[in-house]
Amino acid sequence: MSQEIHKKTTVQSLDNPTEIRVFCPATVANVNCGFDSLGFALKGIGDEMVFRKTEGRGVTITEITGDTLPMEAHNNVAGVAGNAMLEDINANFGVEIEIHKKIRSGSGIGSSSASAAGAVYGINQFLEKPLSNLELTRYAMKGEALASGNEHADNVAPCIYGGTTLVTGYNPFKVIALPPMDTVYVGILHPHITIKTKEARKILPTHVPLKDAIAQSQHLASFVASLYEWDKELFKESIKDVLVEPHRKLLIPHFDEIKAISLQNGCIAFGISGSGPSMFCLAFAKADIDKYLSESTALYECNGLQVDSYSSRISGEGCKVIK
Amino acid sequence: MSQEIHKKTTVQSLDNPTEIRVFCPATVANVNCGFDSLGFALKGIGDEMVFRKTEGRGVTITEITGDTLPMEAHNNVAGVAGNAMLEDINANFGVEIEIHKKIRSGSGIGSSSASAAGAVYGINQFLEKPLSNLELTRYAMKGEALASGNEHADNVAPCIYGGTTLVTGYNPFKVIALPPMDTVYVGILHPHITIKTKEARKILPTHVPLKDAIAQSQHLASFVASLYEWDKELFKESIKDVLVEPHRKLLIPHFDEIKAISLQNGCIAFGISGSGPSMFCLAFAKADIDKYLSESTALYECNGLQVDSYSSRISGEGCKVIK
Repeated sequence: MSQEIHKKTTVQSLDNPTEIRVFCPATVANVNCGFDSLGFALKGIGDEMVFRKTEGRGVTITEITGDTLPMEAHNNVAGVAGNAMLEDINANFGVEIEIHKKIRSGSGIGSSSASAAGAVYGINQFLEKPLSNLELTRYAMKGEALASGNEHADNVAPCIYGGTTLVTGYNPFKVIALPPMDTVYVGILHPHITIKTKEARKILPTHVPLKDAIAQSQHLASFVASLYEWDKELFKESIKDVLVEPHRKLLIPHFDEIKAISLQNGCIAFGISGSGPSMFCLAFAKADIDKYLSESTALYECNGLQVDSYSSRISGEGCKVIK
Repeated sequence: MSQEIHKKTTVQSLDNPTEIRVFCPATVANVNCGFDSLGFALKGIGDEMVFRKTEGRGVTITEITGDTLPMEAHNNVAGVAGNAMLEDINANFGVEIEIHKKIRSGSGIGSSSASAAGAVYGINQFLEKPLSNLELTRYAMKGEALASGNEHADNVAPCIYGGTTLVTGYNPFKVIALPPMDTVYVGILHPHITIKTKEARKILPTHVPLKDAIAQSQHLASFVASLYEWDKELFKESIKDVLVEPHRKLLIPHFDEIKAISLQNGCIAFGISGSGPSMFCLAFAKADIDKYLSESTALYECNGLQVDSYSSRISGEGCKVIK
């Protein structure tokens, strides 16, 4: 947890492997009480990326499928993150990257983060002395900055570490891998509307009531304790957001109705994923998630709004090499 | 953790014991990042109370030493807390209480809380079916309300539970007993000035910057994680207060100088105890605390201000029966 960023040294590349395929999970950030702090990785929902070690220098993006994104490395979050890392470690090789997007851009479940995190995770597989998760997260944030305008880690951290992560601050930069929540089911609902991150930031007040600040800190602290104790009742009581949701929910049509559907169906938590428009819902039983997704999808469709929905789990794994 | 308040039933008293002596520890509340939430008990600093079961009803205060406090039960925090409990459980006995104060009133290390917590803890020893710590805390808060104007648990909880406690909220009311910190040394410095709780409340802003609220929640959450992981570095980094200290320190002369002395002497945390004027300081070595107390006492005395100082530890024990 306390590793310093890798010092500038020449990293020798290995002869093998020269080509790998990586799965990069979708992630949920700004989890209720953990605005700008708490995130988790989703199981089975994510992009794939292929990495080939070359004799050149830097990142070359050779193929993108599933989305229309810039091919030039300096305009692509994977390129920016990958190049930041390759330059900093003074690598004596280059990397070709194929990006196969499955996570819809702008959905709020960490699409750009998956590309940034995947890039540095993939490159790390070619290193004789691989970097730590904390170091990789730091480089992935450089890619995030291209997408959102500022370096933040709440999506890239769970994408790299897997499970549930808490970013405790940036000075010093620290990420805590919290105890797993792998018995928790997740429903993701993505209504097809566009929310710009800037707009979602702008709607937030600069100041909040002190009493709400205290309540939010109690919620986040007791949520952390609930994971260590695995106290389901405390988990449910603490995963609440009194600071951000009251403002940002105004950007999402039918938010209160959808939230009510989730709670009526036995779900234990509901909130905006990232800066939206996707919403996440947690439950201890898959049936609760499926019923919620079916009812909430019907509500949106009755109102003429298209939605995607995903039934998933919190994944203990972050980026990983696949066949 | 999740017990409901004891339902109104007749509690039969035991024949024995009929007289007990209880130690009630001093406590530190509002611990940095945990304003209104986090508190801990001190080892070896505290009041003593003697309880005698009688055939009457309600609390009778028979003796108070060490301080001039009201003898009438309805004007005394121990009386108010004790009577709230006795009435609610419909006890078929009464209690005589002697209060031997050692904790100076108005010092900010839980003087009134010790009396309120001690009262309900003592009475609990006479019950056939003792109440839970959470239930006792709830009754002790009634006493606290007499002293401070509102029911709060941040001192009475650690006084009853011992160790370090986190009050996670009042609706529902919940207290988490956090992992022990019994290797941590504490220095308490009490400059002889008066700070009224009302004044300490009034100096706080009603609104705080959102970014500070986020930082404080990250601090409290990572402090909790540091206790579960026993990560000393994280402990030190997270036990900080960006919301309250900047305002309340203005009420304490030489605060910044005293804080600097603590950090120069290797202490790992420093803050206002409760609403002051006492300050607490934490260290992993007793020598650091002793050096800090000596230098800071000298600074105050040079400036013509009288101080008390205590070298202690965080105690795993709350109120306890003694010989």
